[in-house]
Amino acid sequence: MLDCRSVDDLCAAIVGLAVRGAPALGAAGAMGVALAAATGEPLDDAARRLKATRPTAANLAWGVERALAASDPAEEAVRIAADDVARNRRLGAHGAELLPEEARVLTHCNAGSLACVGYGTAIGVVRAAHESGRRPSVWVDETRPVLQGGRLTAWELQRLGIPFTLVADVMAGSLMAGGEVDAVVVGADRIAANGDVANKIGTYPLAVLARHHDLPFYVAAPLSTFDPECPDGSQIPIERRDADEVAVIGGHRLAPMGVQVENRAFDVTPHELVTAYVTEEGVAATAVAALDAAASA
Amino acid sequence: MLDCRSVDDLCAAIVGLAVRGAPALGAAGAMGVALAAATGEPLDDAARRLKATRPTAANLAWGVERALAASDPAEEAVRIAADDVARNRRLGAHGAELLPEEARVLTHCNAGSLACVGYGTAIGVVRAAHESGRRPSVWVDETRPVLQGGRLTAWELQRLGIPFTLVADVMAGSLMAGGEVDAVVVGADRIAANGDVANKIGTYPLAVLARHHDLPFYVAAPLSTFDPECPDGSQIPIERRDADEVAVIGGHRLAPMGVQVENRAFDVTPHELVTAYVTEEGVAATAVAALDAAASA
Repeated sequence: MLDCRSVDDLCAAIVGLAVRGAPALGAAGAMGVALAAATGEPLDDAARRLKATRPTAANLAWGVERALAASDPAEEAVRIAADDVARNRRLGAHGAELLPEEARVLTHCNAGSLACVGYGTAIGVVRAAHESGRRPSVWVDETRPVLQGGRLTAWELQRLGIPFTLVADVMAGSLMAGGEVDAVVVGADRIAANGDVANKIGTYPLAVLARHHDLPFYVAAPLSTFDPECPDGSQIPIERRDADEVAVIGGHRLAPMGVQVENRAFDVTPHELVTAYVTEEGVAATAVAALDAAASA
Repeated sequence: MLDCRSVDDLCAAIVGLAVRGAPALGAAGAMGVALAAATGEPLDDAARRLKATRPTAANLAWGVERALAASDPAEEAVRIAADDVARNRRLGAHGAELLPEEARVLTHCNAGSLACVGYGTAIGVVRAAHESGRRPSVWVDETRPVLQGGRLTAWELQRLGIPFTLVADVMAGSLMAGGEVDAVVVGADRIAANGDVANKIGTYPLAVLARHHDLPFYVAAPLSTFDPECPDGSQIPIERRDADEVAVIGGHRLAPMGVQVENRAFDVTPHELVTAYVTEEGVAATAVAALDAAASA
């Protein structure tokens, strides 16, 4: 159990990926503002530092802003966290209807309960399909460099009793070409107004491959991941992370000393490659439609 | 230095990847037959065991057959090894002409001198461009699961003084979308009569991405990699390897115990996605043209 007693503690936990995943970052951002209020730190400065930890993450900024705007940041943070599971269950139920019986779903990174307060978004879709008796199975991308798929998604699916097979990320093409995938379902870190999606590095190649093989590519994300202020993917800041995430694993060097490494944490999938957006309010073909459905809900 | 004193020693070295890479396997296969002849092992049985170590590798079977058909297998094995560097230099010179000045080349796996007796095929192309003053640079895919890119290609390029940047395989889409790649150059483990290419798992996604971004996708391989007996990629046997190549690195577990893993060593890139084949005899648009050029050379 990680105990964050200051905004600095929380920022370090976020940078170190102890807390990660879009919806979880939303709750964490709000909690961070509440923490600043409780400890007497200036809220504006805390908000700025929190948002700077993961610049790509829309939910983080959303959670911070929600708490800043609330009369009682702590109450608002608790509400966001409490809402998360219910929202994800609704999202999952909508998404499950997109999957055929015994769907073989390919997913990337971890958009499961460990990325949220609970239940999961992309994994929530699989989970809802599993709970309704549709018997889905999952190809789990290990998700280099940080291996959120192999470490987190595999662990979650093992506990849930949902059949899955772990693969190196490079296997996706072979699986699709072999007719072994029915749908790709991923989460998102930020969705621009035009529907362009920033998500874990390696998502965009899956979208291109899915299109090449005429497979559906679904983005499962709560409405808090949509950023209507951001016109398109070119305006989404892409976080670059440390070279050693690529060059070292568990103290074991994977490349010669001194090599130059480029390590982008996210890539952008253009909206044209997204078959549908799955939110807590339903399934929408475009980001505009997803936000409209929310506004009229 | 690894000293193989029997066909069993050599088979173990090949299975354990101490000897790997298409051209190197061609020489090793021939050496294996020569070793059987020298130690008095039955040649047919040695040939069968050698070929079974890496079923996808065309060069391995080619080297074995060449030595079997020779009156003096040892002499033939030495000739194959001695020819390899000269062939790769010619291949490299042909390929270099395809690259613009300051080309940013993306490559996968290791098709360098460590995959050959010397010089390299895909890396031979980059090397020839470098030697002729064209100042190429390389994006080196780390190449999960065995990391031939991060461990071998990075080491070779570092020694050669050719600028390169190591990336996780999942970065290729982001690099191409950002206009940061001019060409993809890869090696091959077997090329079918119709031009379909078996190469390291993850090659096919690069070909799909290259096509999506209108970038050239070049396959650099000596003629010994072409298998005119194999009609198309569907007939190429794809080697499956141990789960622990994915789940463990250097004794460090990357996934929960007991997870199911699918670990294919190769994938198949359909000939439609190959811009050109680069061999020691020149550059050809199709496999048939490559073999014709060889026949008339």
